[in-house]
Amino acid sequence: MSLTLTPIPGIPMIKPGDDLADIIENSIRAAGIQPQNDDIWVLAQKIVSKSENRLVNLNQVIPSKRAFEIANKTRKDPRFVELVLRESNYVLREKPGALIVEHKAGFICANAGIDHSNVEGDGRETEDWYLLLPESSDDSARRIRLKLENAFKLHFGVLIIDSHGRAWRNGTVGTSIGFSGLPGLVDLRGRRDLFGYKLQITQVGAADELAAAASLVMGQADESQPVVLARGFPYPLRDGRISELIRQREEDLFR
Amino acid sequence: MSLTLTPIPGIPMIKPGDDLADIIENSIRAAGIQPQNDDIWVLAQKIVSKSENRLVNLNQVIPSKRAFEIANKTRKDPRFVELVLRESNYVLREKPGALIVEHKAGFICANAGIDHSNVEGDGRETEDWYLLLPESSDDSARRIRLKLENAFKLHFGVLIIDSHGRAWRNGTVGTSIGFSGLPGLVDLRGRRDLFGYKLQITQVGAADELAAAASLVMGQADESQPVVLARGFPYPLRDGRISELIRQREEDLFR
Repeated sequence: MSLTLTPIPGIPMIKPGDDLADIIENSIRAAGIQPQNDDIWVLAQKIVSKSENRLVNLNQVIPSKRAFEIANKTRKDPRFVELVLRESNYVLREKPGALIVEHKAGFICANAGIDHSNVEGDGRETEDWYLLLPESSDDSARRIRLKLENAFKLHFGVLIIDSHGRAWRNGTVGTSIGFSGLPGLVDLRGRRDLFGYKLQITQVGAADELAAAASLVMGQADESQPVVLARGFPYPLRDGRISELIRQREEDLFR
Repeated sequence: MSLTLTPIPGIPMIKPGDDLADIIENSIRAAGIQPQNDDIWVLAQKIVSKSENRLVNLNQVIPSKRAFEIANKTRKDPRFVELVLRESNYVLREKPGALIVEHKAGFICANAGIDHSNVEGDGRETEDWYLLLPESSDDSARRIRLKLENAFKLHFGVLIIDSHGRAWRNGTVGTSIGFSGLPGLVDLRGRRDLFGYKLQITQVGAADELAAAASLVMGQADESQPVVLARGFPYPLRDGRISELIRQREEDLFR
């Protein structure tokens, strides 16, 4: 059984208020793709955020005293830092050029996932528009999944991904920020390997492995293809949550 | 353009001294797979290590004083800890059940990548046999790549992967430990996005994204399929090194 990752062609530029599920459905049909049960649709965070109008103009942001302090340390715009703080539970690390936080959804990432790359705004002062992550990527994924399932009368998973940096390693990798209809973690506890040993590796971050795979074919630059069909995911689908992938703070050795 | 990950069927149990490239070549031919230029062969670390006879019997290991101390803190076998220390540059974290180190190759992982899952040894006292990572996974990948290229008269990449835990997240993901004939990092600096902005994300950990993708189809338990053909890798191949993926210690916020 192969795993295949196929970008969906013809996804138009997404604007605030767009019905993303409708647009994806139309693009699937226009491309002549025949969906199957257990297909997983992997979506770039940017199009989900844009459709949900998570755009903010920096000129409307008043930085707090704390934002000014962190802006000083990180050499970032205090209004941008203010946005990051509003989207975060707490700051893990701050140094020139780097601001690593726990996002309100619980995962660790740089700048609370906020950036202005690929943001159109209203066409004026484009450099000032920034894009926040969805309010709840799990909920966004669920809404889109239910609509696509209803449109095609099939069972799907929907996975929303972003590009995250890592501790210890250079380069970003596609990472899940929310999903619906697929497992985040797959528990292999109790299973045995080829020689009958109980497995030492007991839990696989399957949604993150799929996020990385889909990220490869999405592209980061002007060839961007923000929706990818993943077919052949090897584990049974169930309705997982991003929270299962987040290590509890007290068990985390690297916070 | 799709990315496809296909396990190669019929890879036999690998034993110390086996010519892994020969075995992979034979399995490819027996499966009727037609290799193409720029195909990447993704190999589970375990079969590379076994073919290189990186098996050690714990009964032949004399723990140092330091190994006893760490064994006490981590509640691990002092002989096992001794092996980990010999394979490591230094220890990052030690607590009951966890020993996180910098492997001699420079990357951070638990237990220096040593485990006894899937290890056959010589058939006696199987619980005492442990498997180390290859001496140099980059070199191993290079040797296998050159043999496969010669056998098929095509250009390939070879990627060796293991399952690594992560800071902040539950679950392991497939991660590259060495490769040849493909990039580790892909540098997008200077490229522009859909709106002409310079990209904020400048470097993609492409080899790690591919490692995660291949890991999904390898399986961890008794269905293990340790060789995966990756076709459709979207970046130009070049002869990269694992070192490009490793963040320099002084630039790392999480050591």
